[in-house]
Amino acid sequence: MKDSKYMATGEWLRGEGPESDIVISSRLRLARNVAGFKFLYRASSDERSRINALLCENIRKAGVADDMIYYDLESVNAIERSYLVERHLISRELADSRGPRSVAVGRDESLSIMVNEEDHLRIQVLQSGFRLREALQCMNEVDDKLSVLVDYAFSPQYGYLTACPTNVGTGIRVSVMLHLPALEWTKQLRKVFKAVNKMNLAVRGLYGEGTQASGDFYQVSNQVTLGKTEEEIISTVESVVKQIIRYERQVRQALVTDSRTSLEDRVWRAYGMLKSARVISSDETMDLLSSVRMGVNMGLIGEVSIETVNELFIQTQPAHLQKREGREIDTTMRDATRARFIRSRLSN
Amino acid sequence: MKDSKYMATGEWLRGEGPESDIVISSRLRLARNVAGFKFLYRASSDERSRINALLCENIRKAGVADDMIYYDLESVNAIERSYLVERHLISRELADSRGPRSVAVGRDESLSIMVNEEDHLRIQVLQSGFRLREALQCMNEVDDKLSVLVDYAFSPQYGYLTACPTNVGTGIRVSVMLHLPALEWTKQLRKVFKAVNKMNLAVRGLYGEGTQASGDFYQVSNQVTLGKTEEEIISTVESVVKQIIRYERQVRQALVTDSRTSLEDRVWRAYGMLKSARVISSDETMDLLSSVRMGVNMGLIGEVSIETVNELFIQTQPAHLQKREGREIDTTMRDATRARFIRSRLSN
Repeated sequence: MKDSKYMATGEWLRGEGPESDIVISSRLRLARNVAGFKFLYRASSDERSRINALLCENIRKAGVADDMIYYDLESVNAIERSYLVERHLISRELADSRGPRSVAVGRDESLSIMVNEEDHLRIQVLQSGFRLREALQCMNEVDDKLSVLVDYAFSPQYGYLTACPTNVGTGIRVSVMLHLPALEWTKQLRKVFKAVNKMNLAVRGLYGEGTQASGDFYQVSNQVTLGKTEEEIISTVESVVKQIIRYERQVRQALVTDSRTSLEDRVWRAYGMLKSARVISSDETMDLLSSVRMGVNMGLIGEVSIETVNELFIQTQPAHLQKREGREIDTTMRDATRARFIRSRLSN
Repeated sequence: MKDSKYMATGEWLRGEGPESDIVISSRLRLARNVAGFKFLYRASSDERSRINALLCENIRKAGVADDMIYYDLESVNAIERSYLVERHLISRELADSRGPRSVAVGRDESLSIMVNEEDHLRIQVLQSGFRLREALQCMNEVDDKLSVLVDYAFSPQYGYLTACPTNVGTGIRVSVMLHLPALEWTKQLRKVFKAVNKMNLAVRGLYGEGTQASGDFYQVSNQVTLGKTEEEIISTVESVVKQIIRYERQVRQALVTDSRTSLEDRVWRAYGMLKSARVISSDETMDLLSSVRMGVNMGLIGEVSIETVNELFIQTQPAHLQKREGREIDTTMRDATRARFIRSRLSN
C-alpha cells in the first residue's frame, strides 16, 4: 500500500474534452459481485475480509492500469477518505462505512475500482468533458481483464447480480456532470428535470445520491439497468444531455443579449468576492466559482483561467484544505484558510 | 445668479476635524422670520416673492461670506436641486416646494442660507468633525451681520417666532451626524437611541426628518428650543454625542479583539464588491462604503484613503452622477454609471 501522494488535479477536472463549457465529466460505473460470496449486507466480517483480499489481488494481477495506487480504507484516516470523496474517487458511503474495504486508483484518476462498497466491486471510469463512448471503451477493457480472473455472479436470465435490484442486468450506471448556471439563474431547471425524469433518468447533486446540488452542478444518470443494453442506456443519457446542453447554451446566449450588464455584474461580483473574502464557506465558494466559471466560458472575464477555476473547485473543499495544511482544522478556521488559499491563487 | 459650478467636495465632507472617525459633521441651523410678513404657510405668492427678494438682497448686503453663490430655486432644474440636497445645502422640502425660494451658499459650503423654506430664513453652518462651538461662533457672526439689516419677528416673552412651535425661542437646531457601524452591526443602536430620546433629543437618518438611516449614518439633534438657551442645547447634544462616540469606540475595539477576522472579512468584501460591481444601487453603495470607511478608520484596510471614501459617498448619489454625466439618466442606467464611476475611482 503506497502512501497517498498529494495528487495533482485528476484528468476529469482538467476542463477539457467535448462540450467542456457545460459538461464537467462523463462517468461510467459497473457493479459486480463475486460468485460464491454473500452480498455485502449479509456477509460476515471474515467474508468481507476475504473478498477484499481476493479482489485487490486480482486487480493487481489483471494489470488494468499502470501505477495504480491502492488505498486500504480501513487504515486510512478520515481526512484522507474525505479527500478521495471530494475527488469523486470513492463514494461517501464507502468512506463512512466500516470494515475491510479498498479502492485502487489509476494514475490520472480516470479509473477507480472500489472494493466492498455496496457491491463487491465497483469499477468507475471518469473523464473530463462529454465522452461517454470513450469512457465505455476504457471500462470494457478493464472489465475484460478483470473478468478473466474473477468469477462474477451472473444469471443467464437477469444478467449481473447486484446487491440492489436497480443495478441488476448490465450493472452499469452512466452519469454526466453538468454545469447549468444559466438554467438555474433563470429558474428553468425544474422544467428540465421534469423532462429528464420522464425519460427514467435521475438528476442529482455534485456528490451523487442524496446530495444537494451545489455550484449549479448536476448529475444526470440512468435509474435502472435491468432489461436494457449498455448501448441503450448510453444512447438515452447522451441524447437527453445533448438537449440540456443546447438549452443551457440558448439561455446563456439570451442572457448575454438581453441582460449583459447584470450578467457581467454577477460574474464580476463573484470574482471580486473570491478575491476579497477573509472568511468563506465551502458552499459560498462553489456558488461564486460557478458564476466565475460561466463568465470565463462566455468570455465575460479574462482575469482568470478555467484551469484555475477548476483547481479552486477541488482544492477548496474541506479535506483538500486540511491535507494541504497537513492537519485537522475546525470549520471556522477552515473558512479563513480557504479564503486565504483562494486569494493566493487569484492574485497570481 | 451665477451658474452653479461643479463644486469640489464641501468642507464638511473632508473627513477632518475632531473625532472625525465617528463624527462626520456638526451642524447648526437658525430659524428666523421677518417682522411684518406672514408665516409662509399663510403668505400669498406675491408676499413670498417680496420676502425672497428682500432677504436675498440683505444677505448680499450683509456680506456674510466671500464669493457666495445664489441659487434661485424656482429657476433651477430638478437635478440641480437634488444635487444641493445631496450636499446637505438645502432640505428636500425646499427642493420640492414651489414658488419663489432661494439658497445662498458659501464657497466652502460650510454656510448656506435658505430663503422661504419653512421659515423665511434658515441659516445653516455645517462643518466636518465634532465642533459645535466653532460652528456656533460662525453662526453668531452671520446672525449678527444679518440682524442689523433684517427686522426679525421676535417676542420678548417667547423669543424668535417661527412657523412651527418646536422652533420658537432661540430657533436653533443643533445636530451631529454620526457614523455608527459597530453599534449597528452589534445591534446596540436601539438601546442607544432610547437613551438619546429620553434626553429629548431626536435621532434621524442621513437626510433629516422622515428619512431612513443609510450607510450607518445617524443625526442626533435637539427636538425643542423653547425655554432653553443655545448654550444649554449645545451642551446637551455635546455630552450625549460624547457618550455615543465612547460607546462606538468601545464596540469597535471589542470587535477587533473578539472577531477581527470576520470584521476584516466584512470590510474587505465591501471593498471587493465596490471594485467589481457592474450595477450598484445608491443604498448598497452607502452600505458598502460605510464598511470600508470603518475599515480605513480602524486601520484594517490600506488600499483606499478616507478622502476617496468620503468623495464616493457624495459623488455616487443620483443627482451628482447625473450632473457629472451632464444629463438625466434613468435608475437602471444610473446603477451601471455609478458602478463604473466607483471602479474608476478605486482603480487609481
